[in-house]
Amino acid sequence: MIVKAYGAHTADKPLESLDITRRVPGAHDVQIDIAFCGVCHSDIHQVRSEWAGTLYPCVPGHEIVGRVSAVGAHVSTFKSGDLVGIGCIVDSCQHCADCNEGLENYCDHMVGTYNGPTADAPGHTLGGYSQQVVVHERYVLRVRHPEEQLAAVAPLLCAGITTYSPLRHWNVGAGHKVGVVGIGGLGHMGIKLAHAMGAHVVAFTTSESKREDAKALGADEVVVSRNAREMAAHSKSLDFILNTVAAPHELDAFFALLKRDGTMTLVGAPATPHPSPNVFNLIMKRRSLSGSMIGGIPETQEMLDFCAEHGIVADIEMIRADEINQAYERMLKGNVKYRFVIDNASLAL
Amino acid sequence: MIVKAYGAHTADKPLESLDITRRVPGAHDVQIDIAFCGVCHSDIHQVRSEWAGTLYPCVPGHEIVGRVSAVGAHVSTFKSGDLVGIGCIVDSCQHCADCNEGLENYCDHMVGTYNGPTADAPGHTLGGYSQQVVVHERYVLRVRHPEEQLAAVAPLLCAGITTYSPLRHWNVGAGHKVGVVGIGGLGHMGIKLAHAMGAHVVAFTTSESKREDAKALGADEVVVSRNAREMAAHSKSLDFILNTVAAPHELDAFFALLKRDGTMTLVGAPATPHPSPNVFNLIMKRRSLSGSMIGGIPETQEMLDFCAEHGIVADIEMIRADEINQAYERMLKGNVKYRFVIDNASLAL
Ligand SMILES: [Zn+2]
Ligand SMILES: [Zn+2]
Ligand SMILES: [Zn+2]
Ligand SMILES: [Zn+2]
Repeated sequence: MIVKAYGAHTADKPLESLDITRRVPGAHDVQIDIAFCGVCHSDIHQVRSEWAGTLYPCVPGHEIVGRVSAVGAHVSTFKSGDLVGIGCIVDSCQHCADCNEGLENYCDHMVGTYNGPTADAPGHTLGGYSQQVVVHERYVLRVRHPEEQLAAVAPLLCAGITTYSPLRHWNVGAGHKVGVVGIGGLGHMGIKLAHAMGAHVVAFTTSESKREDAKALGADEVVVSRNAREMAAHSKSLDFILNTVAAPHELDAFFALLKRDGTMTLVGAPATPHPSPNVFNLIMKRRSLSGSMIGGIPETQEMLDFCAEHGIVADIEMIRADEINQAYERMLKGNVKYRFVIDNASLAL
Repeated sequence: MIVKAYGAHTADKPLESLDITRRVPGAHDVQIDIAFCGVCHSDIHQVRSEWAGTLYPCVPGHEIVGRVSAVGAHVSTFKSGDLVGIGCIVDSCQHCADCNEGLENYCDHMVGTYNGPTADAPGHTLGGYSQQVVVHERYVLRVRHPEEQLAAVAPLLCAGITTYSPLRHWNVGAGHKVGVVGIGGLGHMGIKLAHAMGAHVVAFTTSESKREDAKALGADEVVVSRNAREMAAHSKSLDFILNTVAAPHELDAFFALLKRDGTMTLVGAPATPHPSPNVFNLIMKRRSLSGSMIGGIPETQEMLDFCAEHGIVADIEMIRADEINQAYERMLKGNVKYRFVIDNASLAL
């Protein structure tokens, strides 16, 4: 099946319309007509080959929502017409300890939704900036939000699970004081989710202008991290910090805000290292610096259901596919509240 | 009470014999005639003012064992003649959350056994390179080892608890594969303790010459960390790493050996930072970098009892007090197996 997509032929050229091939659904496959696809910072890094090994043509997009249009003979849990989502993972080994625990995201053979190895042409996976995708049923998520929210559900598939998983893993809930560093695509979801989990949420931003926005998202308090006095007011008081900032930055000032046994978890990896953290800050209060990467398939379903139950979606700005290059430029300036979502119907235009 | 001690009057002079004053025991105090005192790397840093704010005269020593020689009117748990120990802590606020949980080591007002604030002359605490010490009963530990092992018990009070506490906190036990990085004063205790807890212990050293020694201490396997092939053989296989090396070194090679959800805990703080860790190593397997500082009083007692039960003591080399300056030089070259212990009777000579 040949479908329309948007992608790049080389690292230094803008994205453009192109035709790609999707496989005929196998026995365990679900074919999805894509309605919307969120635009993640990873898309930019990958399509521009800022990470090692981008294969071209590159079609990004791993925040996919749409409707099932066909299923393989052995698929029983999905049927045509179902509202579904695909996140960052479209395959894994399916038999390692990680896969067996539903942590496909940590499988050594996890296949990303784009730029991953596949038997399908052209030999690497092509993402959600396209009209259709065909995925093994194991990696298909059910969407229970009302259909009119569908576009705003798309970013939950990456930004949502990337923040939900560490908040759950480190047991964030009522009675906890939680910091969320950075108020962008990831951070705005982190604030909404931590708030819905019952935590007291302190949002950290470098920008005075985001103070009111952060409160509107659900932050109980907002700290401008350049303000030492505001920072000091939270000294040794936070149970957990979700740090969504991928740009290299000083971590020490945030460690000082953690209680004994507190953890700061990074969900973004900087292109060049953060300044090396001061080990005394870890030792003096038995603090931890951790990392977390998206989430497994069962937890992604749990996150979608949690969001449906709590009426949580992303704050989005809808674009046509042919606006993607300008959208990237705006994202690089932090000029979006908080996620661009492509209306995939525009691919047919 | 004036007693003999060994200490320094300035940062740049050798330690020498001096007289110090110990307070008359108060109602809750225990007066201890010190039999032996272990020699910790911290002693060197402090006496040479390599950390901020050393006060002089400086009498180091926080691995103290001896016999009770007097107790205050309200002391009921210790009596004259008891074998006891004093570690790194001689006071704390006694009412914060940390103190209430028996984690006096994390109390913001923890008073170190030397160089800490005190009402006693000369205004800062003086450590165990002395004939006697007077300490509030809360910070006195009972020693249940046979008396002939007393000298080798001394290093348990710092090197022992510093390694025992993180091994316990991160639940090391049977079925776990645990790395211990560095085979010095701390590391040799870490190997013995992790082995006694039932873990499969992998010792990491930069020095081929320590291979057999590490096995004799209880390591099941020994890896020379400069050997990339030996390191790779343990890729993604360790549950926990106890890193005892305070010198700045590359952490990334060790992260790569941790399983998903594994933790590497640092118990030494480098004078200059470690090379900044690669965040991808944390994110890709939800790994953590943590710190841990000595241990609380109840856990120190638990450690002493565990060691008595399992017949664990430190490997020591006994010295006279007047050999301390040469001992420091040998420690700085790593030329000791594995802890010097001062025979405090030599102070009277
Ligand atoms: Zn993403
Ligand atoms: Zn797997
Ligand atoms: Zn010590
Ligand atoms: Zn306290």
